[in-house]
Amino acid sequence: MIDTINVREAIETENGRYAALVREKLKKSNTYLINLMGSPGAGKSSVLLYLASLLKDRIRIGVMEADVDSDVDARLMENAGLLALQLHTGGACHMDAKMTLEGLEHLPLESLDLVVLENVGNLVCPAEFDVGANKKVTILSVPEGDDKPLKYPLMFQVTDCLLVNKMDAAPIFDFDLTRLRENVKPLHPGLPVYPVSARTGAELEAVATYLLHEMERT
Amino acid sequence: MIDTINVREAIETENGRYAALVREKLKKSNTYLINLMGSPGAGKSSVLLYLASLLKDRIRIGVMEADVDSDVDARLMENAGLLALQLHTGGACHMDAKMTLEGLEHLPLESLDLVVLENVGNLVCPAEFDVGANKKVTILSVPEGDDKPLKYPLMFQVTDCLLVNKMDAAPIFDFDLTRLRENVKPLHPGLPVYPVSARTGAELEAVATYLLHEMERT
Repeated sequence: MIDTINVREAIETENGRYAALVREKLKKSNTYLINLMGSPGAGKSSVLLYLASLLKDRIRIGVMEADVDSDVDARLMENAGLLALQLHTGGACHMDAKMTLEGLEHLPLESLDLVVLENVGNLVCPAEFDVGANKKVTILSVPEGDDKPLKYPLMFQVTDCLLVNKMDAAPIFDFDLTRLRENVKPLHPGLPVYPVSARTGAELEAVATYLLHEMERT
Repeated sequence: MIDTINVREAIETENGRYAALVREKLKKSNTYLINLMGSPGAGKSSVLLYLASLLKDRIRIGVMEADVDSDVDARLMENAGLLALQLHTGGACHMDAKMTLEGLEHLPLESLDLVVLENVGNLVCPAEFDVGANKKVTILSVPEGDDKPLKYPLMFQVTDCLLVNKMDAAPIFDFDLTRLRENVKPLHPGLPVYPVSARTGAELEAVATYLLHEMERT
């Protein structure tokens, strides 16, 4: 255990240097980077596609799809008319800042207002790595349960915004939004929480407005 | 990236030595160990509770609950009358063989036929670590989607048995069991796949019978 943790710290220090380079690069091209995180199947791709459909006439969007393997998500994004880049983490369970910088170098940043990095589906590892993004957005889905902040606290501590997806399925799952908020509160008071549905589009216009507002503030 | 992978290999070699110690220990006490894996919220605890209720009059069961933090799951197991031990991975996204051995040392193995290790909710990291278990069981849940084998192939390659949970929710999700089987097949021909529901209990009697049969064969 101790060895593992020390190794992680060493990587993080190097990671911090690369995160600074990512921020510098984004500032130069005036591009906003969102680090989108969540469990496998939480609906990261579906929410992203819906948000992109709301935003694409207002801002220019690029997508980086990080996966352990496959190009399923990048093809999905391209089929929806988005500029998409597939990144493979080579077995790693998260993106780090160096990989993010390499990805950004393959995108025409000067002509993009927003890049969304869809991280590897995972509630643990991505929380530990600053990739240099302007905003961390985490998606939790209703079927995962309202107890997840108790079991994966770091993710809820580090994120800047929480979307609770698949709200349309809430009636058939034992999921209580109030209980979720209570579980989140001690970890991260004031965290914006949006109950949404990528299927019905519920509340995603509000999320799009929030993100545009945050981009303007930067 | 290359550094990270080399570190992982070094850990794995040490891990292999501990996995052998785990196997030796289990053999001595004639205890069977299941490594239960899956995403956060796939239903690992719920399925385990249901299986335990089916098996508890036939075999003596102990549970090790691995979490990054919290003792939510161990309390859940204890409330159901199971002998449960909470393990904290100290931030790590998976259990390794050394941590498993330490956990087993805190259980009265001589009086247990079966120990189930509920791994950290994660489709990536736990797949990479042999904890010395007799059987790897992975739970994928319907809301996660039938494309997950494409995106997290290693888990489906290494597991010995796949349970597809929340089948009762299939009608409201775009989930096709045939498509899932097609996605699994090239990765792991012949993998036993059980569509189940921890809510209705569907097919879990068949899973219990399968596991008892596998235990007898050992």
